[in-house]
Amino acid sequence: LTFSLRVVLVSPRNPLNIGAAARAMSNFGFTEMSLVNPYDLAYREARSAVRSRYILEQSHVFERVHEAVADCTLVVGTSAGGNRDLHVPSYRLETAGSLIRHHLETGKVALLFGSEKFGLSNDDMSHCHWLTRIPTRDQHASMNLGQAVAICLYELMRDGAAALAGPFIPPARAGAAEAERLTSVLMSLMVESGYAHERTMESTELKLRRLVHRMGISAVDATSMAGMLKHVLWKIQHPNPSPE
Amino acid sequence: LTFSLRVVLVSPRNPLNIGAAARAMSNFGFTEMSLVNPYDLAYREARSAVRSRYILEQSHVFERVHEAVADCTLVVGTSAGGNRDLHVPSYRLETAGSLIRHHLETGKVALLFGSEKFGLSNDDMSHCHWLTRIPTRDQHASMNLGQAVAICLYELMRDGAAALAGPFIPPARAGAAEAERLTSVLMSLMVESGYAHERTMESTELKLRRLVHRMGISAVDATSMAGMLKHVLWKIQHPNPSPE
Repeated sequence: LTFSLRVVLVSPRNPLNIGAAARAMSNFGFTEMSLVNPYDLAYREARSAVRSRYILEQSHVFERVHEAVADCTLVVGTSAGGNRDLHVPSYRLETAGSLIRHHLETGKVALLFGSEKFGLSNDDMSHCHWLTRIPTRDQHASMNLGQAVAICLYELMRDGAAALAGPFIPPARAGAAEAERLTSVLMSLMVESGYAHERTMESTELKLRRLVHRMGISAVDATSMAGMLKHVLWKIQHPNPSPE
Repeated sequence: LTFSLRVVLVSPRNPLNIGAAARAMSNFGFTEMSLVNPYDLAYREARSAVRSRYILEQSHVFERVHEAVADCTLVVGTSAGGNRDLHVPSYRLETAGSLIRHHLETGKVALLFGSEKFGLSNDDMSHCHWLTRIPTRDQHASMNLGQAVAICLYELMRDGAAALAGPFIPPARAGAAEAERLTSVLMSLMVESGYAHERTMESTELKLRRLVHRMGISAVDATSMAGMLKHVLWKIQHPNPSPE
């Protein structure tokens, strides 16, 4: 599916941004880039990650938008923030993602990004079936070009199922036995160190047991911790004899 | 909610990337940035969008990770691609997004990004409760820092009714500061008891820190436990003189 998407940069000015767009494409497995009327034709020399250089080398340059999207059956323009051109339908990126993925199963899609300074012009937008907007704040809507490309491609590759799947796998909690062994070593330490007196013995033990249970420590960790603390216990019971 | 998230850049090298991270933060309404050990202290002069300059100006610089996340109750490290450190749980970004959003309702969250070249180190990761990975291709996993920040923040602000429905309610975890104090007392005990040798010092500390993070111990319990263990430490450092 990633081979059916074309990233089209319209009038990009900064070769570094073109390189950054190529890197994000490579990160998410997209390969086809076209440029319309780039400010700097030497953009192929732009610094980009080595592994995305081939995307720049294979990219095509056109003078007009309609040439760059001629073979696409869906053309989507990108914008940022809540502004919309009322002449063209606009979907938030979250919605657009699934629409585009759906279309990629049968046809070729062009995703258009405007220039760093002005975004897509009304003329550029007139070539789009619809627009998608990245949900940035109205107070600072304008995104960096490379970051905007990265976010759109992430949305396309995003695995909705992963988000839906009950995410949290609870750790295998310590069984009562491991918990009790840990409690017991801690209790011995409290006795040996003088923290627990005869009169506080019982309450300290309760306090420790509750604390260990609240921890939700795993069986492996409880055993490991108990083992380490046994070293401390041994040491406290066998202090080094003082030198003669 | 956006005010409860702190973006933490660990050892960033390129001021342009720091500026790009600030711009993405501003685009999505996040304001709090901290840097750990940046290569170039003049990063505040970095070119960034005018409207995100205040984020750079208000940012804080720390020498160590634990200082930058001290008041956070959830610390999440970011990585790219499928690689994972088996010692720390790792969730795809789609899943992590809902976990983090959920946590932001009650606590402060730090989102850590590693250096451009090496990502987060094992030591950096030992401060994290878990990791999230951006689902890039294994063949070209490494993302540009500014783009990685943009994608993570987009995922957090993304309006997916489905993604919001995460059922998991995280426990009120200890802040990183309390967790670090507990780790530190435990470490002293390991040293005093001879469990940790010169050669195992570093690995024992990592092991302990990870263990404490996995516990999900509450702030109150972590403080209480550290207090009790300090008695043990005192005792082991002051063994009773043997009777004459």
